[in-house]
Formats: sequence, C-alpha cells, structure tokens
Amino acid sequence: MIIATTIAQVREQVSKWKAQGLTIGLVPTMGYLHEGHASLVNKAVSQCDRVVVSDFVNPTQFAPGEDLEAYPRDFEHDCALLRQHGADMVFYPSVEEMYEPDAATYVEILSDMPKMLCGKTRPIHFRGVCTVVAKLFNIVTPDRAYFGQKDAQQLAIIRKMVRDMSYGIEIVGCPIVREPDGLAKSSRNTYLNSEERQAALVLHKALLLGQKMIREGEHDAAKVISAMTESIEKEPLARIDYVSAVDGVTILPVDELQNGVLVAMAVYIGKTRLIDNFTVGE
Amino acid sequence: MIIATTIAQVREQVSKWKAQGLTIGLVPTMGYLHEGHASLVNKAVSQCDRVVVSDFVNPTQFAPGEDLEAYPRDFEHDCALLRQHGADMVFYPSVEEMYEPDAATYVEILSDMPKMLCGKTRPIHFRGVCTVVAKLFNIVTPDRAYFGQKDAQQLAIIRKMVRDMSYGIEIVGCPIVREPDGLAKSSRNTYLNSEERQAALVLHKALLLGQKMIREGEHDAAKVISAMTESIEKEPLARIDYVSAVDGVTILPVDELQNGVLVAMAVYIGKTRLIDNFTVGE
Repeated sequence: MIIATTIAQVREQVSKWKAQGLTIGLVPTMGYLHEGHASLVNKAVSQCDRVVVSDFVNPTQFAPGEDLEAYPRDFEHDCALLRQHGADMVFYPSVEEMYEPDAATYVEILSDMPKMLCGKTRPIHFRGVCTVVAKLFNIVTPDRAYFGQKDAQQLAIIRKMVRDMSYGIEIVGCPIVREPDGLAKSSRNTYLNSEERQAALVLHKALLLGQKMIREGEHDAAKVISAMTESIEKEPLARIDYVSAVDGVTILPVDELQNGVLVAMAVYIGKTRLIDNFTVGE
Repeated sequence: MIIATTIAQVREQVSKWKAQGLTIGLVPTMGYLHEGHASLVNKAVSQCDRVVVSDFVNPTQFAPGEDLEAYPRDFEHDCALLRQHGADMVFYPSVEEMYEPDAATYVEILSDMPKMLCGKTRPIHFRGVCTVVAKLFNIVTPDRAYFGQKDAQQLAIIRKMVRDMSYGIEIVGCPIVREPDGLAKSSRNTYLNSEERQAALVLHKALLLGQKMIREGEHDAAKVISAMTESIEKEPLARIDYVSAVDGVTILPVDELQNGVLVAMAVYIGKTRLIDNFTVGE
C-alpha cells in the first residue's frame, strides 16, 4: 500500500492508474479506523480497480470548543487495517498540505438542509465537510466515493453537492456497522468510560423502539419521536441534542413516517456526542 | 466541431479523449464571441490536444436588475468563429441543464477579495462565477483552462479558487484584445450607440495616461488614480464605478504602484458598464 502525504504524490499515482484505464474508488475518513470504515473499503475494493483512502482530521468542520484536538488518532493501526482490507493508497496529509494559510474558498449548500439535525448545533460543520470532500474529489478524481449511512445527513449533503456541482462521481452509501450489543461503530466511542459505554446503548434501543412502533402501524412522526425521546431520557447519563424525523433526501422535517424517512438522533453520553439513525422501509 | 447540449454528452466525449491519452483545454465563455475569445481558443488549441468551449450565459452571476435578459446572444456566429479557430467541441447547455430547480450549492471565497472592485456593486457576482466555473471544471475535467486578463479580478479569483480547492488544472491568463482605437473587446460593446462608442475611448485613454505617469516615475497610487479619474470625468457620457489600484494576486488595495499591481476600472458609458485594466510592469 502506498502512503502518500502530498497532493502531488496522489495526483501522480492516480494519473498513472488512469492512463492504464483503471477505475478509482475514494473512501474519505478522519482516521482511527474501525469496522465501519473497513466495510467502506471492502465495498470500494469490490467495485473499483484501485482504492484510495484519505485519513485526515479536517479542521474546517470543527467549531471552536469541539473535539478537534482530542479527536483520536492512530495512523499505524489505520495502515494495518487498510492493508488488511486491500486499499491501494492511503492519503495522509498534514493540515498545512491541505490548507494554505490564507485559504478562504468554501463549498456550501445555501439552503435549510445543512441547518437541520446536526447543523443546528454545528452551524459550520457541513460547510467544512463539503469543502474538504470537494478538495479530495479534485485531488483524487475518483469514479466512486464511499460514505457511511451512520452520518446520514452528511451522506445526503454530499449527494446534493455532487448533483449541484456536477461532479461525475457515483456516491455509494454503506450501512451502519454495529457492535454486537447494537452500539453504532464510531471513532468517538473511544471517549466513553465503561459506565458511559453501557449508557450509550440507549441510542440503539430507542431506534429499535421506533422501528417496532412503525412496524406495528404507527406512522405519526410526533408520536414515535416522543416515545423514543422518553426512552432515552430514562438514562441519567444521556442528554438529547435531537431526535428527529426528516426526509432522507432533503433532510427537511416530515410529519408522517413513510418509506425513505430518516429517523435520526444525536445524544450526549457524558461529554461524548453520539449519533445514530435508521431509514423507514430499509 | 461537436455541439453538445447536455452534461452527459460532454462527459462521454471527454472520457473517450482521455482514454486516448489526449489533453483537454477548456475555454469558458458566455458566448457572443469576439476576437478576445478567439485569442483564448487559439492559445488553447496551441497547448492542448482537444479544446472544449462552453457557451453559457450564467444566471447565477447576474443580480436582479443587471443585464441577464439583455445579454447579447448569437450561437450560429459563435459556432462559425469556433470552427474557424479549431475548437473541437462547444458545450451549449440550457439553464435547466446546468441548474436543477432546487440547486443550492455554491463555491465562494469568504474573504475581502470578491468584495473589491466589481464586487462592491456586484456582491453575488463572483460567487456565481466560481460556482459555474467549478461546475464546468467538474464536467469537462480539463488539464488547462483559459481566461482573459480583461476580467482581471475574475482571473485572480479563479486562480485562488483553483489553489484553495486543489483543482489539478492549470489556469492560463491571456492578454486583453483591443479594437484598433484601443477599446477593449467586450460582448457588451454591442450595447453602445455610435456616440457612446466614441465616449467609451476614455477608458483606454485613462489607462494610457496612468501607464505614462508610472513610466515617468510616479508610483503614488493615489496621484495616478486621481489623474485617471479626472480624465474620465471630462467625458459627459461617462460615470465612474471605480478606478482602483490593487495587488494583482490578492485584489486588496495598495498605495504604491509596484510591478504586479493591477490598475483597474469600471465605467458606465450611458447605461453600459465597461471594464478595463493594466498590470504595472507588464
């Protein structure tokens, strides 16, 4: 596996691959890789001739006071996982390589979409995500790019950006990968102490409750969200940021839980903010 | 010459060319082509294996009340000129092909750069320019793209966008092309009646005056700008929008007229807004 730390290295290698007619898959990550990321790499390897994984904790998607400094990192472990899953290149740039000191250009969706859900408390987050993903698209020029359904709003926003900005890139969404007890895999799970780790199960339990209610015929979003909220509030270590039902494509609020509706939540367990979701009918 | 009206057609043809290892040049235009555009196409033909010219009056760079509706169009004449100069493809999309009804994603430089010069009176202009140029980059995926130095702020902004967004595209700036009497070629010159056409010469005359003062040793921007301003104000049909000296890369104001400084102006002749400029030392 090639370890590239500069944009020039990536461009040079990718252009060699393209000259051979090979297709390129891109898996953008912030590192500290787990089985969720591995599933993206596996999918990319199965669909593309060459797979590039970016491993970059992107500062422009963190606001002051968020966990940019604390965000966990372990590049050696990341490389081992990526080799094991067949990635061809990891792109591991410094912040200085990705952003010149006077960088000021951003890609932004100027609608309500990025203000919903996580955007309510993280107003600059998706502008940073769109910007870094567009840069990675421009550097790697992939045929396909892979994103996890765990970050459902991010996935919807990337799909929107690709459509609006006319990128000729297929966006492949991949299912949430969970621990055996149901907790969605996340690099931020490492922040949890053992008590919090147990408390964190309320997210998945609330999702199961919502799914059960829908299966049993309840399609009133307010009722399902309210029941899910109550079930989370029983956990003393949990503090809800949001539990919401939105259209899975537009991320705008809905009243009825029809197929394609995204039921999503963000919940603080202690100081750790976790997200999880399901899509009705999937 | 191929006439493509859809994004899919462009992508298909470009990918065929790329599979043959050919390099691609892009010349973005708003049509109503003149010798200024022709010089861009000539340059592109001399440097690239295949040349794509886009011909699209981009609505997102016009504010309400500007001349979007009135902007002159003549696609047949454009095609004749492009054939004559050796373009391989013209991309002539409809507004609906370029922008879906709910398009909301923009590329924007969030610094003072796009607020200077033309940005003072056209606050959304460069956001529209960056967005459509980024889309054209994503559709055509050129090796090089060609822009006229007449739109000097636009050229500087595109260079900045390319750097910040990590586009692997070389931006080639081409000199201003003038009428025999000095008026810079512009599609908007067609708006001028014969009296205005004569009055419009004040722009070039003011530039010549500024260049002469600098050649004779005056490097105080305020003095040169003031003399140029006075010379324009003598023309009753002229109304100055701005006459300014800025850094040619950052487009921020400067006091001293050193090499690389851009001396730029926008002047209304009657209702027609014309721009012109020179760079010190070029």
